[in-house]
Amino acid sequence: MQLNLSTDIALRTLIYLGGKGGSATIAEVSEAFSIVRTHLMKVVMALVAANLVLSERGRNGGIRLARNPAEITVGEVVRVMESNLALLYCLRQEATNDCCPLMPACKLRKVFFNAQKQFLQSLEGSTLADIL
Amino acid sequence: MQLNLSTDIALRTLIYLGGKGGSATIAEVSEAFSIVRTHLMKVVMALVAANLVLSERGRNGGIRLARNPAEITVGEVVRVMESNLALLYCLRQEATNDCCPLMPACKLRKVFFNAQKQFLQSLEGSTLADIL
Repeated sequence: MQLNLSTDIALRTLIYLGGKGGSATIAEVSEAFSIVRTHLMKVVMALVAANLVLSERGRNGGIRLARNPAEITVGEVVRVMESNLALLYCLRQEATNDCCPLMPACKLRKVFFNAQKQFLQSLEGSTLADIL
Repeated sequence: MQLNLSTDIALRTLIYLGGKGGSATIAEVSEAFSIVRTHLMKVVMALVAANLVLSERGRNGGIRLARNPAEITVGEVVRVMESNLALLYCLRQEATNDCCPLMPACKLRKVFFNAQKQFLQSLEGSTLADIL
């Protein structure tokens, strides 16, 4: 049970930008956390698409938070970055009733669905501002 | 954010044994869920070591639940099977204060620790008997 490395990088990038309170270059963040630049750029693109980070081109360009740290929750970042939140195979969207003989009567999915809801709700209770 | 395939197999094996109410052979469980037999055997060994399953040798041997289904929680199975519950790199036991410049002041670890606690507590509220 681990989060993707991309989620890890996303959270640290946002903390870095929030802590700095202004813009930073990709090179700067990449160096601060020893993250491979191409991986960081992919993560930043996802953060830009989710309106969590703004990217500004030009000589004084860079990346910065798109919103106030109090308006960004850890839960939102996890939901944006974790492309697959299906804890078990049978919770995946592509899973059919044929994929396991226990389906569709199995109550396990509901148990995990509820536990994950608790997990995400807990993360949604913490903002970037709380962490900084 | 996914659980190991071994955890998935462990849960389904326990549900199968609980549903059957008696002993089953490895071949039977392996066939029921289309699980590779060597993988299933590794999982069963872990379940035996955790006193969740009993393994009986001999002609009428097989595996069966070591306890009443009401005494086995989903949370216990997840804790036994997930060797690595560290959601982020910095939550791993081997992580040092040098591994990330945000440590040791970073409050993110506590946020995830609390969320995971909620997750596991939720799973500990459901027993195998509730699922069957």
